[in-house]
Amino acid sequence: MPRLANIGCLATCANPAGQDDIGLIRDAALVWRGGTVRWAGPAEALPAEYEEEPAWDAAGGLVIPGLVDAHTHLAFGGWRAGEFSDRLRGRDYLEIAEAGGGIASTVRATRALDEEALFDRAKRFLTGMGSLGITTVEAKSGYGLDLESELRLLRVYRRLDEVGPTRMVATCLAAHVVPPEWAADREGYVRLVTEEILPAVAEEGLADFCDVFVEDSAFSADEARRICERGCELGLRPKLHVDQLSGGGGAELAASLGAVSADHLEYVSEAGIEALAAAGVVGVTLPLAGLYLNQAPPPARALIDGGVAVAVASDFNPGTAPSYHLPFAMTLACARQRMTPAEVLKGATRHAARALGREGEVGSLEPGSAADFAVIDAPDVEHWLYHLRPNACVAAARGGEIRHGVLR
Amino acid sequence: MPRLANIGCLATCANPAGQDDIGLIRDAALVWRGGTVRWAGPAEALPAEYEEEPAWDAAGGLVIPGLVDAHTHLAFGGWRAGEFSDRLRGRDYLEIAEAGGGIASTVRATRALDEEALFDRAKRFLTGMGSLGITTVEAKSGYGLDLESELRLLRVYRRLDEVGPTRMVATCLAAHVVPPEWAADREGYVRLVTEEILPAVAEEGLADFCDVFVEDSAFSADEARRICERGCELGLRPKLHVDQLSGGGGAELAASLGAVSADHLEYVSEAGIEALAAAGVVGVTLPLAGLYLNQAPPPARALIDGGVAVAVASDFNPGTAPSYHLPFAMTLACARQRMTPAEVLKGATRHAARALGREGEVGSLEPGSAADFAVIDAPDVEHWLYHLRPNACVAAARGGEIRHGVLR
Repeated sequence: MPRLANIGCLATCANPAGQDDIGLIRDAALVWRGGTVRWAGPAEALPAEYEEEPAWDAAGGLVIPGLVDAHTHLAFGGWRAGEFSDRLRGRDYLEIAEAGGGIASTVRATRALDEEALFDRAKRFLTGMGSLGITTVEAKSGYGLDLESELRLLRVYRRLDEVGPTRMVATCLAAHVVPPEWAADREGYVRLVTEEILPAVAEEGLADFCDVFVEDSAFSADEARRICERGCELGLRPKLHVDQLSGGGGAELAASLGAVSADHLEYVSEAGIEALAAAGVVGVTLPLAGLYLNQAPPPARALIDGGVAVAVASDFNPGTAPSYHLPFAMTLACARQRMTPAEVLKGATRHAARALGREGEVGSLEPGSAADFAVIDAPDVEHWLYHLRPNACVAAARGGEIRHGVLR
Repeated sequence: MPRLANIGCLATCANPAGQDDIGLIRDAALVWRGGTVRWAGPAEALPAEYEEEPAWDAAGGLVIPGLVDAHTHLAFGGWRAGEFSDRLRGRDYLEIAEAGGGIASTVRATRALDEEALFDRAKRFLTGMGSLGITTVEAKSGYGLDLESELRLLRVYRRLDEVGPTRMVATCLAAHVVPPEWAADREGYVRLVTEEILPAVAEEGLADFCDVFVEDSAFSADEARRICERGCELGLRPKLHVDQLSGGGGAELAASLGAVSADHLEYVSEAGIEALAAAGVVGVTLPLAGLYLNQAPPPARALIDGGVAVAVASDFNPGTAPSYHLPFAMTLACARQRMTPAEVLKGATRHAARALGREGEVGSLEPGSAADFAVIDAPDVEHWLYHLRPNACVAAARGGEIRHGVLR
């Protein structure tokens, strides 16, 4: 089926600029061929050549580019519900990590699973994400932290790209934390990452990006610089976890390394905002992590006003953001980050695609982009993000093929 | 079917005391007859007389008392998504109200709908709520604000109790705000409420409770006292909206009036907490309203430590809490109000039932209580509220009859 008719409100997100410019068209139509958008515009302007194409009926609903979740830790073993309660009783994130909980506990549970088990778990999550209208998912390794375990996670993502309801973009996060067995030899672990893991990932073509968690409890700025420079040599562009638990010039570091995105930013400084804007680094905000860690949100308004393109992602992981409900994170981005619904939609589509180096391919509906879209039961974007429901997504398509829901 | 077997974890909430005592039983069974619970306990202790009863299989999941949403404004006309964006751009709630938006705009849209239209809308919301495991819903009038319109809303709730997936508990909130046509004669409107609306509601048996929004922009403490005292004479127990936008002794007022609950409490004082505890008034917290209004949450820990039974409800309404997703509100109560998952579950079951004068009837699973339960796809309560999903409720029953989902 190559056409979608009776679209009450279409958000094309075709303009690269303007956080709140989502290219709204009332009473619209969308045409594609071979999985690629041919035409998007007002129904009354539909070119005659497309009028006879068979059409699905959007029933007057809202149609958006398929959502792009630009930051997840999708494949992992176990859960950490106990830590959720522990934090509510007053233990803090770093205290739990120092006692062997936190990321290290997920590393143990992840290493214990074989590739099939990891694949099956991640595929179930993706099915849930697909039902919410998400059609592209960035997924990080980082719960393996040895050569074989990191490769296993990334191979799972490659397989999921072929069969899942969503496109996958993989990131090697071998530099998530220093694993316990290397605690006495940090330098040895950094060398393992730069000399073995990243080269093997690049050799097998398993990832597009190299990520580092820059924080006192994880990696220093100097270590991050060495790891990212090695990644760049191997063709893996940097993404960085920065300024999440403390401010330490992380955004400035990301800018100086030419990172495609700087993620978290709860503690970003004014100088950091200027550096991100000057370098064209996307700021990826993660409202669920801030909620679960009971933090003040990142200064999204200052980022936008400072000229930074802001993305909104789920951060889905078993510790600090145990939910893949990106639309819920989007409503949180409105309520807590004071972004308007239009700004948030741009942040979960076009700007999220930019944070993955895929702008114009996914995250927008314009001639040449993928026919990835979601049909939402709402008259407009404001109503959708305001009236938070379990799931307002009626149907979602990847490359013009329905992967969730039913359209007539 | 009179029995539920293979319950991995059963939370009976049978103990009236203890905010975090949810009566957990691992590997449990539940037996009912004629819609009423006969027995709940460890499967190995199931009395022989029940062993031959046909049983549904809970598949090792979590079983809880059907959720009780103790504070909603369920039936209304229109929506107010535009105000959501306006607030994000910096307009505040009272500024919007003074310009003719806010509650007054919903009153206009509600008066324009006939009983059938209100019924159909509310029934759709209830279907969504039922699918989340909610089996009892308190619903307030308050968007009619004249005799006929208030009665129409309450009649809708009575009809819904008969046909809906949930039990209904109705509250007359004719004292929501002074409607525009009475702006020049507040006293006239208070007399309309006390001399016409409340007597008519009582005469027709349409509500159990009388509620007043106590706030500078709504009703004064003196007006609330007059309205509640009249309600009490007519057999309508008081519930009060207090200390939401400003602190003004609202909790103390609720205690002095013998209210069954004091709702909101963002600005409750220490003296207010002492008064609520001494009078046995339930404190109903509404995390969605606080999120949407970007407020600091109510001091739930101080309320609990002060001996107040705390409930957690959705506040579903088209202005400040446009979501009926009570489990989402429950996760927010953990993250923002620093309540543990067990405390929150008690707050959305037994303590919510207490806030409706129905403790022991609904909100707990013990001999004599209603067989209202929900089967949740989670190993325990912690995991459920931590791993926030679109909907983790597998099935829900009202009076032992499945109203949502499928059990084998």
